[in-house]
This record gives sequence, structure tokens and C-alpha cells, in this order.
Amino acid sequence: MFHGLSAFPLTPTGEDGIDSNSYARLVARVAAAGVDSIGALGSTGGYAYLTREERAHAVKIAVEAAGGTPVMAGIGALRTSHVLALAEDAQNAGVSAVLLAPMTYQPLTDDEVFGLFADVTRELSVPLCVYDNPGTTHVRFSDELHGRIAQLPNVGSIKVPGVPGPAQARIDALRALVPGTVTIGVSGDWTAAGGLTAGADVWYSVLGGTFPSTALAITRAAQAGTAAGLSEELEPLWTLFRRHGSLRVMSAAASHLGLTGEPNLPRPLRGLDEAARREVVDVLTALGLTS
Amino acid sequence: MFHGLSAFPLTPTGEDGIDSNSYARLVARVAAAGVDSIGALGSTGGYAYLTREERAHAVKIAVEAAGGTPVMAGIGALRTSHVLALAEDAQNAGVSAVLLAPMTYQPLTDDEVFGLFADVTRELSVPLCVYDNPGTTHVRFSDELHGRIAQLPNVGSIKVPGVPGPAQARIDALRALVPGTVTIGVSGDWTAAGGLTAGADVWYSVLGGTFPSTALAITRAAQAGTAAGLSEELEPLWTLFRRHGSLRVMSAAASHLGLTGEPNLPRPLRGLDEAARREVVDVLTALGLTS
Repeated sequence: MFHGLSAFPLTPTGEDGIDSNSYARLVARVAAAGVDSIGALGSTGGYAYLTREERAHAVKIAVEAAGGTPVMAGIGALRTSHVLALAEDAQNAGVSAVLLAPMTYQPLTDDEVFGLFADVTRELSVPLCVYDNPGTTHVRFSDELHGRIAQLPNVGSIKVPGVPGPAQARIDALRALVPGTVTIGVSGDWTAAGGLTAGADVWYSVLGGTFPSTALAITRAAQAGTAAGLSEELEPLWTLFRRHGSLRVMSAAASHLGLTGEPNLPRPLRGLDEAARREVVDVLTALGLTS
Repeated sequence: MFHGLSAFPLTPTGEDGIDSNSYARLVARVAAAGVDSIGALGSTGGYAYLTREERAHAVKIAVEAAGGTPVMAGIGALRTSHVLALAEDAQNAGVSAVLLAPMTYQPLTDDEVFGLFADVTRELSVPLCVYDNPGTTHVRFSDELHGRIAQLPNVGSIKVPGVPGPAQARIDALRALVPGTVTIGVSGDWTAAGGLTAGADVWYSVLGGTFPSTALAITRAAQAGTAAGLSEELEPLWTLFRRHGSLRVMSAAASHLGLTGEPNLPRPLRGLDEAARREVVDVLTALGLTS
């Protein structure tokens, strides 16, 4: 489950709710490309903005559209009891794993973050991926906290944020702290090839949700030790990811490709403005990613 | 509505939901003390952790228990359509005003924050207080953004975070940016007396939710220009607020006073540990706040 390329599609959502048809098409497209797993309702999938009912509906669509490709579903919420309800819904829909970020409103202590994972993992019947995403949760995981949480039952992987610079030291440090059964996955797409080359087991990929073939090529090359160059060629796209956030860039890309309607993000999120959207289209065109 | 002392009680919540009886007693106690308004479902009232149904129920309790004292209700949520639904519920329950913080998961641009307030204020039939709370929302309001939002219809007040050092410059700078009909309110309880003395119109008070008479004494003295000393005497309590967060300190205080049961915060939030709880009790005892 937690290896290779895990692709995170958008959940196209307007003011009237989820566009179910577009969502099923996005998931089926990713599965057809041959990704190793699908991350439904990740941050790119807008889980934090959806109701319990919308999320249960989306997970059902994802599992069905994925065919045999394993689906991992985001179950994060601000309150533990809501996380448990979402885990139950996801398991009932047939997911192969769940993904949990410690969402915050009041800042949480390390003991509270650990307590959340302890309360949730003991109720699960599928493995969990620990989602470390300080840019959205504002939780700073210490290595010690990662080590404690990784000992909990049903923890199968850790999704770490992109690290600037060489990834080897970070991967090695984490590897020394967690049981051998827990895989380490990288995100921050522009750092992923380096992370895989340094021994990360899986790339939790925003790019892969909309451009699965391109992300697969990078992944397979890195796994074969021949990554050099493929990710670097996408630098103009990574620049836009860093400037506007990968969610908004993929939102513009998916609608430009005709994969979703407009808008595909729920308010208060807004799509990129015209100038930024043009930049995205120019970069996609230059990279041959528009067909 | 937006002047004097606005007291923010806890919404006692355990794993089984809101403790309605304790909540009604807390609100009635604050109203009986003579506060100018009541802030239901603020950050101290745990709004971010409650369902729409729980929030509608809590607002009804608050309006009823408050008697004639005006109630302002928090309507914050991650998604604009959810905020609109919460505003409708609160208005139907008879609130006199609403309080809106721009909650975030994906970081919001200034235009997205402005768009949220524009989308919400145009639908309201009661005035709105803009809730600037970077510690929980991670939104940094520029003065320019405050100025833009304050021009929107139905904006009645701004709740600004505590400012370190002399408050006069901050109050004067904001005053110059917002229409004369919009009042300026301070929070960060340890800075409130200074803020009122510097001309703030209202204190949005965590302390006042559990110790309304003490907060009222500080407020009335500051309004009369004789504040010196009253707030400073509470410095041992303010120290605990800064160390543990005012929410957790008031949670421990309310249960120690027998105003709520235990636990009174929903998981993943946890009460203070035994050592910290003893500190709170010692400080309350030394300050004569235990009866």
C-alpha cells in the first residue's frame, strides 16, 4: 500500500457541492495510468472543507472509480470524535488505508497530538498514514513525537513535508526512529525525486493527481536509480507550486485540461487570477503537459 | 452592543457533547453580573470543535439564559457556505450580533479573506464583529485589510489580538482606518486594561466568561480612567494564561469552582495536567477568586 507513487486528485467542489462525475473521471484517470495508490480527500482533495456526508460520498466514488487500485482516504477533523466517525465511513466504503493530519484551531501540545493518534489508531481495521503538514495544521512534529506515534498499532507510513536540501539525512534520521514496518513517504513535489533517491518508500504526490503519467515516470526512474533530470525539467511548474500553492495550480490545470468545471474549489478558496492562470497554461504548454 | 465588557464563557463539552445545564448556568452567571454583552461560541467557547446542530443548540441556550443581555455568537467555519448556515441559525435563535474569524486550513490570500467577509456580511440582518486571532487562524490582518473589511455593510466592531507594549499607537492607527461606526475591541486579557485606557471601546474577555465581576471591576475602572493596579494584581493569572493558553486555564478554573464537570473540553484538547492545575488553584486562591 504505502510504496511507489500515491496520487492525490482534487475533489472538484463548487458552491453546490462535489462534482461527482468529474471526481470519478479524475480518479479513474489516475488509476488507469497505473499509480500504486490513490490518496482521496488529501489536502489537495479539500477534505477540510467538506461535510461528513460529502466525504462519505466522495470516498465511495473514489473506491469505485479506482477499480483495484488501493485507496487511502483523509479522515482529518478538528475533533477526535469526528475523526472516528470519518474513519468508520471510510472503512465502510472499502478504503485500504486512512490518512490523518492533526488539524488544529487551538494549538495542540505534543501530548494532545499523540493522544489523537492513540485514540484513532486503536479503533482502526486498516493501516494509517501519519500526515505531517505544518503548512496547513501548524503542528510541528519533533522527531521524538514521530517516533512515539510510529509505535502505535496500525501505523503504516509517515508522510513528511518536503525538506530543502539533501534528503538523505532526514530520511535516515526518521528511519532510525520508526519501526521497520512503517514506510516513509515524501511530499513537497519538487523535493520528491530527491527523497525517493535517498531511500523514501513512497511519494505522496499532488502532481500525480492530475498528471499521473508524468509523476509515474519520475517515480519509476528514481526507483531504478536513474532519476536525474526528469524532475528538474519541471522546475517552471515547481516554481508556480511554491508561489501559488500546489492546490491552486492544480485547480487551474485541471480546469484548463477540461477535467473539471469552474470553479472547482469551494469558497473562501478562490482560483488563481487571470495573470497567474495564464502563467500556469504557458508552463504546461512549454512542458508538453496540455494533452 | 460592541462596548464595555463582552464576556466569553466556555461551552462545557465532553465526549458525549455539550453539557447544556452547565452552559446555561455559566451564561446566566455572566448575565447576572451585569456584563454589557456575552460572546457565545468564541474561541473560549470552542466553536471550532462543534457541529452545526450543537452550535444551534448552544446559541439557543445562550440567548435564553442571557435574559436581556445581548448575545454575540461565533459563526466561523472553514467553508463560506457553512458560515452562512451558521449565521442563519444564530440569527434565528435571536442573537444581537455575530463574530467571524477567518478559519483556515489552506492559507488564505488577503483577497480570499476579504471575499469571505464580503460574502457573509451581505447576507446578515445583525451586525458582525471581525475576529482577528492569528494564534488560532494563522491569518495576519494587515491594517489595509482591516480597513477594507471595515467598509463592508453590517461590520460593527473589530476584535484585535493583544498588543505588547503601549496600546495607544495601535488603537489610534486602527481608528484612522475604519469608519466611525465601527468600534475597536481588545483581547489578550493581560493587555485589556491598557487597551481600554488607550481608548478601545470594548474588552472581548476570556476572564469575564468565568470571573465576570472581576473583569467588570477592571472595565469600569478603566472606563472611569482609574484602572491603575486592578489588572496588574492579576499578573500571576495572566502568567498562567500566557504559559498554558487562557482556554485551558479557564477550563481548570471552571471545573475547580464546580461550574462545570470534567472533562469540559472535547478531545483532542485535554485539560491541564495535575501540576499545572495545582498552579491554577493556588493562584486563584491567592487572588481571592475561589468563591
